[in-house]
Amino acid sequence: MLENIKSPEDIKKLSYKELDVLAAEIRDVIVNTVKENGGHLASNLGIVEATIALHRVFSCPDDKIIFDVSHQSYPHKLLTGRYDRFDSLRRYGGISGFTDRNESPYDTVTAGHSGSSVSVALGIAEANRINGSDSFAVAVVGDGSFTNGMIYEAINNCTDCRDKNLLIVLNDNEMSISKNVGGLARYLSKVRTSKKYISFKHRFDNHLSSIPLVGAPTAKFLKWIKDSVKGAIIGETLFENLGIPYIGMVDGNDVKRLEEAFGEAKRYKGVSIVHIVTKKGLGLKAAEEHPENYHSVSPVICSGAPKRTFTSEFGGYMVSAAAENDKIFAITGAMTEGVGLSEYAKRFPDRFSDVGIAEEHAVAYAAGLALSGYNPVCAIYSTFAQRSFDQVFHDAALQGAHVTLALDHCGIVSGDGYTHQGVYDVSLFSSIPNTTIYSPETFEEERISLMRALDGEGAVIVRYPKGGEQSYDRSGYIDCGDFTYKMPGGKPDAVIFTYGIIASEADAACRLLSNEYKIGVVKLVKIFPLDIDRIVSLIGGAPLLIMLEEVMRTGGIGEKLAAALSERGENTRVVTMAIDGEFIPHGDRASLLARFGLDAESVAQKTKALLQKSRQKIKM
Amino acid sequence: MLENIKSPEDIKKLSYKELDVLAAEIRDVIVNTVKENGGHLASNLGIVEATIALHRVFSCPDDKIIFDVSHQSYPHKLLTGRYDRFDSLRRYGGISGFTDRNESPYDTVTAGHSGSSVSVALGIAEANRINGSDSFAVAVVGDGSFTNGMIYEAINNCTDCRDKNLLIVLNDNEMSISKNVGGLARYLSKVRTSKKYISFKHRFDNHLSSIPLVGAPTAKFLKWIKDSVKGAIIGETLFENLGIPYIGMVDGNDVKRLEEAFGEAKRYKGVSIVHIVTKKGLGLKAAEEHPENYHSVSPVICSGAPKRTFTSEFGGYMVSAAAENDKIFAITGAMTEGVGLSEYAKRFPDRFSDVGIAEEHAVAYAAGLALSGYNPVCAIYSTFAQRSFDQVFHDAALQGAHVTLALDHCGIVSGDGYTHQGVYDVSLFSSIPNTTIYSPETFEEERISLMRALDGEGAVIVRYPKGGEQSYDRSGYIDCGDFTYKMPGGKPDAVIFTYGIIASEADAACRLLSNEYKIGVVKLVKIFPLDIDRIVSLIGGAPLLIMLEEVMRTGGIGEKLAAALSERGENTRVVTMAIDGEFIPHGDRASLLARFGLDAESVAQKTKALLQKSRQKIKM
Repeated sequence: MLENIKSPEDIKKLSYKELDVLAAEIRDVIVNTVKENGGHLASNLGIVEATIALHRVFSCPDDKIIFDVSHQSYPHKLLTGRYDRFDSLRRYGGISGFTDRNESPYDTVTAGHSGSSVSVALGIAEANRINGSDSFAVAVVGDGSFTNGMIYEAINNCTDCRDKNLLIVLNDNEMSISKNVGGLARYLSKVRTSKKYISFKHRFDNHLSSIPLVGAPTAKFLKWIKDSVKGAIIGETLFENLGIPYIGMVDGNDVKRLEEAFGEAKRYKGVSIVHIVTKKGLGLKAAEEHPENYHSVSPVICSGAPKRTFTSEFGGYMVSAAAENDKIFAITGAMTEGVGLSEYAKRFPDRFSDVGIAEEHAVAYAAGLALSGYNPVCAIYSTFAQRSFDQVFHDAALQGAHVTLALDHCGIVSGDGYTHQGVYDVSLFSSIPNTTIYSPETFEEERISLMRALDGEGAVIVRYPKGGEQSYDRSGYIDCGDFTYKMPGGKPDAVIFTYGIIASEADAACRLLSNEYKIGVVKLVKIFPLDIDRIVSLIGGAPLLIMLEEVMRTGGIGEKLAAALSERGENTRVVTMAIDGEFIPHGDRASLLARFGLDAESVAQKTKALLQKSRQKIKM
Repeated sequence: MLENIKSPEDIKKLSYKELDVLAAEIRDVIVNTVKENGGHLASNLGIVEATIALHRVFSCPDDKIIFDVSHQSYPHKLLTGRYDRFDSLRRYGGISGFTDRNESPYDTVTAGHSGSSVSVALGIAEANRINGSDSFAVAVVGDGSFTNGMIYEAINNCTDCRDKNLLIVLNDNEMSISKNVGGLARYLSKVRTSKKYISFKHRFDNHLSSIPLVGAPTAKFLKWIKDSVKGAIIGETLFENLGIPYIGMVDGNDVKRLEEAFGEAKRYKGVSIVHIVTKKGLGLKAAEEHPENYHSVSPVICSGAPKRTFTSEFGGYMVSAAAENDKIFAITGAMTEGVGLSEYAKRFPDRFSDVGIAEEHAVAYAAGLALSGYNPVCAIYSTFAQRSFDQVFHDAALQGAHVTLALDHCGIVSGDGYTHQGVYDVSLFSSIPNTTIYSPETFEEERISLMRALDGEGAVIVRYPKGGEQSYDRSGYIDCGDFTYKMPGGKPDAVIFTYGIIASEADAACRLLSNEYKIGVVKLVKIFPLDIDRIVSLIGGAPLLIMLEEVMRTGGIGEKLAAALSERGENTRVVTMAIDGEFIPHGDRASLLARFGLDAESVAQKTKALLQKSRQKIKM
């Protein structure tokens, strides 16, 4: 059936019975593909019916649907002409695991960060208003994303808007990635339990607008009735308090009910919120029962044995550190499992906090703990820590508050694509005074970096990649703490500087070149601030320094190194190989390194070309 | 009277009559000092009684008060031993216009950005909880700051916390800097109008906890009564919906009532919110009537005639651009007046939005408009735009959405200190692909930069300083659009590169050196990306390039220039003079430039020393 769905128009003709079959097919395709390719599972299984209903009520791409974060957009992809390519999900050159503007006109935005959907949708609705268009903008937001401040800023900004057509679908599945936390979760749970909430105000408004106006007194009288009745019977919902009509709750896995609710919002026009309750993981028994294990699934899950990763090592270190030091306090933003803190959370519940998807708050809250003598560690994915730059500046570093940021998923992140790469953190955080950055390559270095971070001052960042260590022969390297190095005998032709797991490419490039040239490799662990005196001595008079780093060139360590050497009047030429002026798509690590010329072969080739040129120059 | 108040303990002994006198004295000192030194006026006049009451109910510095943004901390400063130094307010070396940890143990944090107080206070309350301390953390937050997402993230995170002592004082003065906007403002206005809200739930909880428990049925029965009565009479307040006991509203200019409310929160323990309503500008008739004109006051206000500033020029340009181009849409974050958009807002209300203090939302909302064919301009102070890095990355640049950021208060910002300097934006935004940055020095360049920005692609940033143009003789400069330059005859000894109004110092330094050396000056207007070919030709073989910039060295243009030249194998030595590894305090521009060695004399001296050294080298 799915193979005949070329566009959402095709599902408008189907009967509810046929839709049931379609929904089952969608779930099959998703489960089978994710088993092979990895990806988000539970959230996508839960949203199947809601996606069908949205595409039946609205007409995309004239109406614009924005999936918040968009890790629940697989059904949408399958219904908008991407069934035949779905087996390439998350593969290099294949379709993205998130919505992607380059992939389809049905994908309004390229998404991946939480909480921005309502803001963007409001902008679209605003444009439609000015254009006099009746089209709708729809933001589909999980209850997890509702802990994010951006959602609140946006909702606060679309109060009493009858002239902007914006539907906010609150997809309430009683959990985000970790168990949902905080006041809103408590509120929603109360609403779910009471089961008495209805869209009273909204329905009444509809009645009100359908009655021909016979002068102000009548309107006033009706308003009086409405206010009295409403106040007496159900009070206002949270969202109505903020001025947004509320329709809810709706069974989020019942296409018919969903169509009614979305249809009502559409007829009503203006801004409204429809609260749907979906079953995460629906259709896959194991995922229904333990959706937290099926949020983001790697293909490995089938193979069994857990692998040692930088994430699991971080978790292990935190447990042992907290056992020895009762001032350690760990903070995560709805990612307890994702950042490896599950065991810590169990062992030290009193010194652990999951603050929800609230990276801004997380860091400022950590700063408060630090000002009171605690040793807080915020564990965040690098890309999500972009949200907390200002807090690292304003609330941590400026106060001299000692806050450790454990940044996971640094560097090139395979699979997830544009919005999940950890390649900006170095540029960002190195601009703040009172900040130190470690970028370990091995588990051992990670452990030592964390130890030094906890003993440090101001904001200290330990950044490490997704996955595990690279394996290569490190026997030639000398360990100096802040860096390790290996040097050829005599004056080197070039020294490759690097940090993080891309060091394996640097090492391999060195080996590829070593028959012809004398090449040294310096792998930094403490990458900021740089100890230039020691670096100069390491360069050992080499005329060429290659900086290989898997972050953005602008603001990266290569720039800082080149600038520092130039400032000292050193004659070493610095050539940086890094990510330059491009966003990084999804794919496997090897393909992505090759694409950006950061694999060993490319590095060796470029280095060789540079060395050949300078030899020629010398000869001339 | 004020001169005898050496610490908050001293006001605990005073009678209410004496407190009235004290309050009047505080207002006098504030008005007179701000007249001389500039500063925040209306907010400080409104908060006098609340500050007195807080210091009588709580015992600082054991209890910690955090003033959100802290532009309302003058009364606090006067009551905590800083009366004798208050005439140095905002002056270089004098006391800060914001709370400052270096200034007093009573200043919990160095503040200046909106919305972080509750997060930090929660961290402190958390530490107190673990320590078994009864001390309180108090966050004083204006209703303006309540539009910020961080506040919501924090509030969402302190639900049902009887074990953390945190008082949130919602200082409701019916406006922030601009007229307050959005759902929460609407809600508060409704609460104020109804006047019937009381701390019902809270009082009832107190009763409940004071009744000895006689088994579950009783508790259940009591809860049933509470729920029924509450639902029937007043419904839940917004904050109670989120799980935070609410006490309000309280007359915020009545010390006795305030003491009662704060005292109740203190006895209750746990987290609660006290809603006070204060009169902004109280005690100064003109400020009471037009508080928006008395938010941030410059001493100039007394002297009359409005000066041309980069802000007013921006406002003027926006009006003329919007008149010609009906796709232009202007967005501000509660700063309509501050960023010069008052006239625009009046003329084009349909294409203008004040989103509240919500810089994250502002940029994503702009992106939505851009995706729908509009040409949005977000006008934000540079320092506050630090909040929107992730949105410029995720919602604008990554989408290819064309959003213009007009960053005001760039570079060194006199008066406001650490938290208001615009010195990070270059490091931040230049790391994002698809981003262009202009940094005009003159009004004419500002106009052209804005024009090019509006015609541009992706995220385009136009950054300009507080205040007006610098005046010096520009007659020798040749204008090339992206840059202007003047060159000596023959090969220069050094070329000073610069951008923004610090160009006047570069020009003066050049003049100071020109008797002895051949010095060129290149003033960039488009500072990113750099056109390295043209830059190399401009250097004209000079062995020394001085980069003079008033931003952070790390991630600044000097680093990029040095790296690009090194990469090309150019032999020019690049020496950057910028802000390095330090936060910038408050003070006048001249003092701050001198402090960081960025004034003409320092630049000339350092350049001379460099040139002398290299001459000596050559001689040897």
